[in-house]
Amino acid sequence: MLYMFDQIPELEKQWENMLQELQELIAIPSIAAQNKGSDKAINLLSQLFKQAGASVEVLTEHRGFPVLSVLFEAGPEGDSEKTLLFYNHYDVQPADPIEEWNSEPFRLTETEELLIGRGIGDNKGDIIARLTAVKLLKEELGYSPCRIKFLIEGEEEIGSPSLAACLEQYQEHFASDVCVWEFGNKDENERLNVVAGLKGMAYFELSVQTSESDIHSSQGVFIDNAAWRLTHALTTLRDSNGQVLIKGFYDDIIKATEQEIATAASLPFDGEEIKARLGLKQPFLSERRGTNPNYDKAYEPTVNLCGITSGYSGEGAKAVLPYKAAAKVDFRLVPGQDPDKISKLLRKHLDDNGFEDVVINQLNGQRAYRSNPSDPFVDMVLDTAAEVYENPPLLIPTHPGSGPMYEIGHLLKVPIISTGIGWIGSNYHAPNESIRKADMVEGIIHIKEIIKRFSGEVK
Amino acid sequence: MLYMFDQIPELEKQWENMLQELQELIAIPSIAAQNKGSDKAINLLSQLFKQAGASVEVLTEHRGFPVLSVLFEAGPEGDSEKTLLFYNHYDVQPADPIEEWNSEPFRLTETEELLIGRGIGDNKGDIIARLTAVKLLKEELGYSPCRIKFLIEGEEEIGSPSLAACLEQYQEHFASDVCVWEFGNKDENERLNVVAGLKGMAYFELSVQTSESDIHSSQGVFIDNAAWRLTHALTTLRDSNGQVLIKGFYDDIIKATEQEIATAASLPFDGEEIKARLGLKQPFLSERRGTNPNYDKAYEPTVNLCGITSGYSGEGAKAVLPYKAAAKVDFRLVPGQDPDKISKLLRKHLDDNGFEDVVINQLNGQRAYRSNPSDPFVDMVLDTAAEVYENPPLLIPTHPGSGPMYEIGHLLKVPIISTGIGWIGSNYHAPNESIRKADMVEGIIHIKEIIKRFSGEVK
Repeated sequence: MLYMFDQIPELEKQWENMLQELQELIAIPSIAAQNKGSDKAINLLSQLFKQAGASVEVLTEHRGFPVLSVLFEAGPEGDSEKTLLFYNHYDVQPADPIEEWNSEPFRLTETEELLIGRGIGDNKGDIIARLTAVKLLKEELGYSPCRIKFLIEGEEEIGSPSLAACLEQYQEHFASDVCVWEFGNKDENERLNVVAGLKGMAYFELSVQTSESDIHSSQGVFIDNAAWRLTHALTTLRDSNGQVLIKGFYDDIIKATEQEIATAASLPFDGEEIKARLGLKQPFLSERRGTNPNYDKAYEPTVNLCGITSGYSGEGAKAVLPYKAAAKVDFRLVPGQDPDKISKLLRKHLDDNGFEDVVINQLNGQRAYRSNPSDPFVDMVLDTAAEVYENPPLLIPTHPGSGPMYEIGHLLKVPIISTGIGWIGSNYHAPNESIRKADMVEGIIHIKEIIKRFSGEVK
Repeated sequence: MLYMFDQIPELEKQWENMLQELQELIAIPSIAAQNKGSDKAINLLSQLFKQAGASVEVLTEHRGFPVLSVLFEAGPEGDSEKTLLFYNHYDVQPADPIEEWNSEPFRLTETEELLIGRGIGDNKGDIIARLTAVKLLKEELGYSPCRIKFLIEGEEEIGSPSLAACLEQYQEHFASDVCVWEFGNKDENERLNVVAGLKGMAYFELSVQTSESDIHSSQGVFIDNAAWRLTHALTTLRDSNGQVLIKGFYDDIIKATEQEIATAASLPFDGEEIKARLGLKQPFLSERRGTNPNYDKAYEPTVNLCGITSGYSGEGAKAVLPYKAAAKVDFRLVPGQDPDKISKLLRKHLDDNGFEDVVINQLNGQRAYRSNPSDPFVDMVLDTAAEVYENPPLLIPTHPGSGPMYEIGHLLKVPIISTGIGWIGSNYHAPNESIRKADMVEGIIHIKEIIKRFSGEVK
């Protein structure tokens, strides 16, 4: 596999050591949702970054899972006025459904082309790629060309509930000029997607109880039931084309600029490929609405029904009036929308529609964030990507997923751009999560180039 | 407990023997839904009825669970021109949730006041009560005063799917002049409810699949999901006040007569008692509509959502687009409505509303049936009840529950009336199913009086 190292022969010597680090990190099931493995993960990472010459601090006073603060000081010939921050997380999704894995989820598995394991794509592979890039750069230059910081948190997969508190308490630890976000991947056309924004999120459980226990359904002609009430309440939230019907929901949106709209519109979108790959049986909601799916992915908020359960679902016919019903609902938000305000609007909407009895339990809330696509840092990351990668990169103004970008961008006042080592088959959050070794190599080169360019080492 | 036998001292001698029969019958878990126990139950019943002097035949050629056909010929001094048919069933509901039983479900448990066990109220207790009444009558008169038949089927709890085939094949076995239906119970005011009709039923599974597997919910802004589609489809079926919105649904209804409406309107209805007893949190649907709940229970059809399941329902937040969703829906029908036509109307309704992808699987279908409340047999059953019971009986023109009354009434052309030994706490289909011993005694006396009066033994 020597060809992999054509662009960066010095990586070949580091490769086995890097795989060893990755193997140890993947072996720790650091699953925030199950309150597992955070101490082991943070101890290993502390050790790895210290060995690379960084000073590290484990932050715990914000009372969430510990956050690792890493600092590589600029060398004597470097520029200590410039600070680049990497945002990453050491927590991973649960491995369920485990039976669908073809290998042990928490053991790094290597094939000719792939590295496989829970967290390899999201986000442990990126941590090690970035660490390796810094090591190689220090080896090449003899010093770090700028100040390099890492913020590695442990709650990303559960909505980063205590990150804002951590940032407020430890703001000086993370003060910086620019930020490279956690992830990036090549798309179905082998083009690197560089992401300049994330949608926000507000996740709710809705539940209703109509009686003390199930009632024989013969009484349904005059007694209402929880299943009917909740389905009726839910369908008042959006129409069947996906338009949200909650009064005030769209009010606070910061409109995308002409340039942002043009950027999204210029992205490729192969609807037939998506339908075939996912086995979709219905037209896109954007087709029903007559809207542009790339615009919608970047700039439209939505509400989604993640699950609903009520009453009898076993074999055959059981005729009951279900006494309780529950649903999981997530809102995807765009800049300007406040999850707490959405929560209040949702309550008012349900009350106004006669569903005062539907109980709301908010599980998380994150604001959306969008970097200025004209920021020179955005251009620089794209330019370096264009040099490193075979195919031209794509700027995704807003990824439809979520993450705590707002907290960092808002508090630290930095442009944020996301790039990484994933591919179209990375299976984030799913069984058989993987990266390709060749993408790891290119990703390391790209990070190294970003640091050099940012430091002024390369004009 | 000698007082129990004041009206019928000869029952006291039979009592222990009767409990023994009941104990053996309850001990057989004859659960049609689980394809269990039908042979044992029918063998025991054959033996018990033979011992009482009946000729019995086990009918199997209709290919469903076996049906027991019982005939007590009229004695030489009886009237062999008159035939009374009892409809009963030996199958019972599953005992789930078993953990909520305070005793073994399939062991007859006796307290000072109660007899407890699965099927004691629905419907094994009534079988034994009727058998005992016939025995006592034969003992008293020395012969059977008319021809007495029993049809005891084994599929009532799963919608009697093969009863119509059985009746067509064995019609002569069950030819009769009048029919006493399986059940009856005292209400919260200790008044016996005598039932002259049952609603029909059509039970459907509705399901939809929108993709090959779950999709990350970030795509929900342009990709639809199964949970949304099914909830939207369901809420087109009826409005939140319970009015059915399917075109043509109400077209074929045979309107209740003035007398029938008056009968229903005259029944007691203590809404506050019902709300308190069931812990209802919402107004009755009839209150929302401004309709009479007694009218609705007797003469209004409805559609009920018995259960719905889709996507994620575990702990915490998981953001997915569910790829499949399923619901259980039962329609309660009134005379004139045809379950097969309802199935076609449902298909057309879903198609017309853009839900061609919602798959319908019909699990059962039963037409409604209503005896003529002016039939002299109805009067006679009420008159005898008024004599036997302390409180005046109530005529319920249509019980809101369902059963195969239409098949028998339509094919055999007989008036049908239902009376039995239950009470308000019988917990049919639920844990701790029970009857009261005193109600068993009164029920036996009532059945004995009905047979005597029908035969002309008492004018």
